[in-house]
Amino acid sequence: MKSYEIALIPGDGIGVDVTEAAWSVLTKAAAGAGFALEGTTFPWSCAFYEETGAMMPADGIATLRKFDAILLGAVGWPVRVPDSVSLHGLLLPIRKSFVQYANIRPHRLLAGVEGPLKKTDFDILCIRENTEGEYSGAGGRVHQGTSDEVAVETSIFTRTAVERILRFGFEQARKRRGKLASVTKSNAQKYSMVFWDAVTAELAAEYPDVEVTGYHIDAMAARMVMAPESLDVVVASNLFGDILTDLGAAIQGGLGFAASANINPDRTAPSMFEPVHGSAPDIAHLGIANPIAAIWSGAMMLDHLGEAGAAKAVMGAIEAATARGIGTVPGQNKTSEITAAVLAALA
Amino acid sequence: MKSYEIALIPGDGIGVDVTEAAWSVLTKAAAGAGFALEGTTFPWSCAFYEETGAMMPADGIATLRKFDAILLGAVGWPVRVPDSVSLHGLLLPIRKSFVQYANIRPHRLLAGVEGPLKKTDFDILCIRENTEGEYSGAGGRVHQGTSDEVAVETSIFTRTAVERILRFGFEQARKRRGKLASVTKSNAQKYSMVFWDAVTAELAAEYPDVEVTGYHIDAMAARMVMAPESLDVVVASNLFGDILTDLGAAIQGGLGFAASANINPDRTAPSMFEPVHGSAPDIAHLGIANPIAAIWSGAMMLDHLGEAGAAKAVMGAIEAATARGIGTVPGQNKTSEITAAVLAALA
Ligand SMILES: CC(C)[C@H](C(=O)O)[C@@H](O)C(=O)O
Ligand SMILES: CC(C)[C@H](C(=O)O)[C@@H](O)C(=O)O
Repeated sequence: MKSYEIALIPGDGIGVDVTEAAWSVLTKAAAGAGFALEGTTFPWSCAFYEETGAMMPADGIATLRKFDAILLGAVGWPVRVPDSVSLHGLLLPIRKSFVQYANIRPHRLLAGVEGPLKKTDFDILCIRENTEGEYSGAGGRVHQGTSDEVAVETSIFTRTAVERILRFGFEQARKRRGKLASVTKSNAQKYSMVFWDAVTAELAAEYPDVEVTGYHIDAMAARMVMAPESLDVVVASNLFGDILTDLGAAIQGGLGFAASANINPDRTAPSMFEPVHGSAPDIAHLGIANPIAAIWSGAMMLDHLGEAGAAKAVMGAIEAATARGIGTVPGQNKTSEITAAVLAALA
Repeated sequence: MKSYEIALIPGDGIGVDVTEAAWSVLTKAAAGAGFALEGTTFPWSCAFYEETGAMMPADGIATLRKFDAILLGAVGWPVRVPDSVSLHGLLLPIRKSFVQYANIRPHRLLAGVEGPLKKTDFDILCIRENTEGEYSGAGGRVHQGTSDEVAVETSIFTRTAVERILRFGFEQARKRRGKLASVTKSNAQKYSMVFWDAVTAELAAEYPDVEVTGYHIDAMAARMVMAPESLDVVVASNLFGDILTDLGAAIQGGLGFAASANINPDRTAPSMFEPVHGSAPDIAHLGIANPIAAIWSGAMMLDHLGEAGAAKAVMGAIEAATARGIGTVPGQNKTSEITAAVLAALA
């Protein structure tokens, strides 16, 4: 029987709860489709940091490299470990080391889910650059603690990274409705964003069948609320993609429904799948986290592994549950109830 | 009679249309309240650039300095002059040179206006740092046009600027409902945003009566859509404030309703008042731009000049018009009709 090796990193807080839920659904879907998922769990987290002084072992990246994919819950527990430490010690190095340059996040309303907008008819695919830009981690602070203190943070954009993410965006647009929105802020950031616009213009010539439109990030944020139905594929830098996909999560009913895939499209290293939500320490282990975003992320993993049938079955099962109102109202159903409903629909 | 000298910079596109409209309302409100507004118009714009090679004369800043306030329409006409040139040549230097460090933008639904959200009960004051940060304009490009090209853009945060904007935010929160949200992205930007968080924590000790909460920009964007009623004063960096205020404009019904003030709180130089919207070249001079954002910005100017009574009269007149449905549906009323309705309500 075909089998895939999956690294499970539940991480912190509700990351643990939703990973367990997603895993039960995914393994069942695999069995139904005639393949196996072999999971190996890594306890890397803020608790691990408190014990060892690091978010993962020194050979963590090397260990993960031999897996077919990574399923991650959530990382961070700010009162225990500063986010700037926990994220730069685990989540962000995985994205960068494995050149998971395309962070893909779908935004649409699942059957039965009510969003905050009056408009309900949208289907957006956000594609976020995932390796550099505003997340480069380059910078410093001088005259610390004095009235002359200055902090600098440098965004670094390379042609390699900008070109590949835009190309990925054009390709996705081709597979969907043929529309690509490229998001910058070139009226204010005249080096990085003007560069991004220039690369977009170059590539547009290669994709005459794709209708590409440039938007400033501020205008795009407004558009996602005013006219989300006008959008198809949206491609943006690391930071802008981060912001737009939380906004996308909001319009699709909340973070409980927002899935994401950190893809290495060249398959030179494993890709990673994780819900957009964080670890939500306040509700950790109460059994009330919504596992749908994690399960949906798992479906994206199956799809990436080439198991499109099983992925579709999982999505169908999620929507069978949500269409009945299970998991659609925050706090109404327990994690276990929602998981059970999805498992039942999968049967 | 008391009189104020106002520099009018209509700028580009609909900036011209809405400035004319706002000016007629403001001068009438002044007459009614027993003071005069003396306007001097400066044609600085993209057309001016095409004629002279600069967005404003070399002594433009010196010229403006002697005015009591500046009323601006909108700047930019991208097919004629790149935004990165027009904005860095006019709007941004005014904000920076006159140390208009607090960009204030109110977000609430005017009477009669329908927003895109199901929720309608919110009243947010966004305060945006307006002089540095991600808009510092520091950066460059190397290996231009080659596959090795790299663009860098450096955000610069000084203690002076971060402290004064946060202090301004705390003071505003004190005058309102006592809640301050400070927006950063310290889990990803470990120099600039961690610094901002540190200054917030320091100042919080001085304002024990203000309830301050830190949010990441992505979470705040989602919150403005999911739970805008939970917010009072929101303070953010230049870029984050830019994004959040377009989002604020969206939830208040669109850019036609979003006013803004670029304030120099120390009054060492004139402050500037402008609608959040851009120049909208596609509808320039068709007489269909909504002047409400510009008129509201003008009311903020009157307030800043110490004419609170006249400011209140203008706001009352705007809402008397919108409550009757005038100017509330995009494209339904001409600029002149909306202006006439506001003028009539002022009588
Ligand atoms: C936790 C944080 C560093 C992360 C990010 O900003 O990338 C998260 O918000 C996300 O969107 O995956
Ligand atoms: C035109 C642009 C440079 C400007 C900004 O980003 O500050 C505008 O979007 C605004 O919000 O006033």
